[in-house]
Amino acid sequence: MLDVVIIGAGPAGLTAGIFAVRRTLKVLVLGDPGSPPTITEATLVDDWPSIPNIKGPDLMVKFQEHAKRMNVPVKNEKVLEIKKSGKNFLVKTEKNVYETKTIIFATGARHRKVAVPGEEEFAGKGVSYCANCDGPLFKGKKVLVVGGGDTATTYALLLEQIGADTTLIHRRNQLRAVETFQKQIFKSDIKIIWDTVLKEIKGDRFVKSVVIENVKTKKRTELQMDGVFIAIGSVPMNELGKNIGLKVDKSGFIEVDKEQKTNVHGIFAAGDCCNNPTKRIITACGDGSKAAETAYMYIQEKRLLEEKKNSGKA
Amino acid sequence: MLDVVIIGAGPAGLTAGIFAVRRTLKVLVLGDPGSPPTITEATLVDDWPSIPNIKGPDLMVKFQEHAKRMNVPVKNEKVLEIKKSGKNFLVKTEKNVYETKTIIFATGARHRKVAVPGEEEFAGKGVSYCANCDGPLFKGKKVLVVGGGDTATTYALLLEQIGADTTLIHRRNQLRAVETFQKQIFKSDIKIIWDTVLKEIKGDRFVKSVVIENVKTKKRTELQMDGVFIAIGSVPMNELGKNIGLKVDKSGFIEVDKEQKTNVHGIFAAGDCCNNPTKRIITACGDGSKAAETAYMYIQEKRLLEEKKNSGKA
Repeated sequence: MLDVVIIGAGPAGLTAGIFAVRRTLKVLVLGDPGSPPTITEATLVDDWPSIPNIKGPDLMVKFQEHAKRMNVPVKNEKVLEIKKSGKNFLVKTEKNVYETKTIIFATGARHRKVAVPGEEEFAGKGVSYCANCDGPLFKGKKVLVVGGGDTATTYALLLEQIGADTTLIHRRNQLRAVETFQKQIFKSDIKIIWDTVLKEIKGDRFVKSVVIENVKTKKRTELQMDGVFIAIGSVPMNELGKNIGLKVDKSGFIEVDKEQKTNVHGIFAAGDCCNNPTKRIITACGDGSKAAETAYMYIQEKRLLEEKKNSGKA
Repeated sequence: MLDVVIIGAGPAGLTAGIFAVRRTLKVLVLGDPGSPPTITEATLVDDWPSIPNIKGPDLMVKFQEHAKRMNVPVKNEKVLEIKKSGKNFLVKTEKNVYETKTIIFATGARHRKVAVPGEEEFAGKGVSYCANCDGPLFKGKKVLVVGGGDTATTYALLLEQIGADTTLIHRRNQLRAVETFQKQIFKSDIKIIWDTVLKEIKGDRFVKSVVIENVKTKKRTELQMDGVFIAIGSVPMNELGKNIGLKVDKSGFIEVDKEQKTNVHGIFAAGDCCNNPTKRIITACGDGSKAAETAYMYIQEKRLLEEKKNSGKA
């Protein structure tokens, strides 16, 4: 019997693991091998206090090394199902079934799709959701970035820096990104096309062109492109929570209180899968630490109640 | 006119500063020169994800360097008073008066006193609240540690490691500290006296002895001691919030919601001064980032409302 199973081995999950170990809880962190944490796609992290400038994958390695040094057990097993089992939970993976007193969801979020013709067909053939991973392939080529937030602007800046001929389209007439990134964009040679959405991606073996549409005039234009980087937000990975009755907001993010409790007793959540407005690495880690402490308090209270009940019987 | 004044230059305050700068807010962080952040007293930090092992003061320097590199303006000025001024606030320090749209409290907490005879008299003369600072002076000497939480146990472990003959007294019959620290304590040569409180500290120029009392038998004992390390918790530094009407809990910690809003519009709070059950560095930083983002949203919404109002008038 485990005290806590943490689903997700990104920043929130590993931090929860570190704090669970400090409380000597019997813990297991389960990472989905098919779904690496989104931090590994971050070109540049400048807001992890104590390290002014680091690549996302390098910071992730630091978290992993820290967890290893604290003897946090981490397994790469995709979770298939969660069930109630009396007062506890059964967590079924591809390989095992774990019984646990509590669960912390730290499942993160994945990239939102535009859902246009060609997007799936050319995925990995010019269509990418990660400039950090695929950007270097596009040196000297023409690329389109779709989106107006932090991710889209940093993708565009990176691609331009790599030496790609970079155009950014955004469905509104101003960016959502933090002002520091906006300033850099406006100083750069990146072309911005406002009020415009992606309608189609065309090509043969690889991407050759895109069709874009002005949302006001409905005018369509075909532009020759070698690559399309899509950065229009994220959707939470909370499918597992459905059959256990986790309450989510209208976008599917898990509703948590300020101690990271969900509506289901014994289940807690932290990081990008939650309905917090701030989705940054430091926030995910801070909330991961809270989730572990709250799980610890929950287990302690349950134990005390059991002891009281048993001593009453004796 | 500033967008946000952050009161407190510890982990929560500097993280809020970093996030405010990323949003290009006009920000000022005010640190009280007479009250260094409690992180600087931490002997060992093992739960700052990405750095498995670091001294508190060294981690604080990393935060300060990061803030400096991001051009976060930090001044060492003690805040004397906060007042409303129309829709904004006036923050009065020893040297200046700042007008600001919002305030983030990141004032931290300070050490709780036992309040027994001799405690004030021998402060700095054998009585200490910081084993990290003063421990090395007590090599080969007899020291008493008062308390049963994380701080008390780590103080005792450090003092024993330094080579002090270490005794710990705790008012209960079990420790509150995390289990990893408890295990280390029980494996060590540290003497533990349960159910016992400090009643008096005696000496001449320096501490010579302590009087302790068993809370059950009321029996008093005098023990020869050279030093007394007091670690019985903390009280929040929230005096400034009183005249502005900040709601606090019964221990004086500022009540915040999950977005770090207080009950006063335009005032936010993060870190040890708040009523969060988890008081760790990573939690303070995570909540500091949230406070800055919430302040940013507040300012944006206010600006939009003003613009609407003005365009209505025109």
